[in-house]
Amino acid sequence: MLTHLEIDIENIKMKIFNMADLSIEAVSSAIISLKKVDLKLAKKIIQNDSIIDKLEIDIDNECIKILATRQPAATDLRFILAILKVNTDLERIADLAVNIAHEVLQINGQPLIKPLVDIPRMSEIAIEMIKEGFVSITEKNVEKAKNVITMDDEIDKLNIQVNRELFTYMVESFKNISQGLCLIGVAKALERIGDHAKNIAERAVYYIQGDDIRHKSKKG
Amino acid sequence: MLTHLEIDIENIKMKIFNMADLSIEAVSSAIISLKKVDLKLAKKIIQNDSIIDKLEIDIDNECIKILATRQPAATDLRFILAILKVNTDLERIADLAVNIAHEVLQINGQPLIKPLVDIPRMSEIAIEMIKEGFVSITEKNVEKAKNVITMDDEIDKLNIQVNRELFTYMVESFKNISQGLCLIGVAKALERIGDHAKNIAERAVYYIQGDDIRHKSKKG
Repeated sequence: MLTHLEIDIENIKMKIFNMADLSIEAVSSAIISLKKVDLKLAKKIIQNDSIIDKLEIDIDNECIKILATRQPAATDLRFILAILKVNTDLERIADLAVNIAHEVLQINGQPLIKPLVDIPRMSEIAIEMIKEGFVSITEKNVEKAKNVITMDDEIDKLNIQVNRELFTYMVESFKNISQGLCLIGVAKALERIGDHAKNIAERAVYYIQGDDIRHKSKKG
Repeated sequence: MLTHLEIDIENIKMKIFNMADLSIEAVSSAIISLKKVDLKLAKKIIQNDSIIDKLEIDIDNECIKILATRQPAATDLRFILAILKVNTDLERIADLAVNIAHEVLQINGQPLIKPLVDIPRMSEIAIEMIKEGFVSITEKNVEKAKNVITMDDEIDKLNIQVNRELFTYMVESFKNISQGLCLIGVAKALERIGDHAKNIAERAVYYIQGDDIRHKSKKG
């Protein structure tokens, strides 16, 4: 039979997986709305964000209740603490999808100044990172989590590439500046989504082995 | 005599106040480096970030140790959980100061295309928000924390104004596009620093009265 704590943890797992699904869907839909210049879809993403906001508060409260009443130790404590932080990252990811949707509304149905290749690629990598981060939590697979962390470099490189390319479009004609700024905003949002996905993988490593690997890739 | 838990909490308080001071200094120095086009100072901000990164991990570990060994309840539990989240916000604020420093390096000593008024104003408000957020924690003053939350609107308004103004400079001459993008990046970083400062005030309210006020200002 499961203990109260085990039941609570299963419950939290279900909710955080649901939260991850909703955040991924928000990012994916935001990029579809951009590619198709679909204002209706962009508006829907903005509206749906309140569902994710409510779920974030719900998950936080569940975690706090477990800490207060079940006094989890070792792996269970690390799991709850990791979920508390992952939850914030997922909510921020959904917020960034909303930022992208706002850029789409700003573009306001105008034809795109260039075909989008790198931006959709950035979103694909970011979504893959979130998914694999969660697989690494389920499988307690540190190698998989560490692999996710390295994937962020690819997104950062694409962001620089997108910025450089859009800059040339903007210099070429002042008519491209307005949309160029929107697309730079989209790429920036995806770069930040990649950062949050990386955070999730870092929390996964902490949960699995109790090792805090944040900032270790930085100099020094 | 103080209990072990009380001693631990005082210790954490000292560290998180130190973390706040360092983050504020990073933001303040970043704006000085921009105004003075001071590349040396910008580089120093980037270098110093590793100190803040280490302190973040230290504070997180202290919080986790308290949760694992002292099993705090009620206000103390809320305090530790609030600090865990505030700690992340402060580290992100320092990271955003680093982003600003990178924009300064990108500008690379070129004279500024316009006198800076709104950008320094944004940074002043953001710093005031962080300071007041911490005062509200010390004084357990909910009204002060709620006041901080409303200050974020002013930063958002200034960000829109800065963007609009820089857009006109960029359209006016393609020579302004490169630096215009840097200054838009600075304003965006300050807007996000304001968001994190707002988060800190929201955590303060949660700590003081156990009420989660996140997302309440949003529609619905």
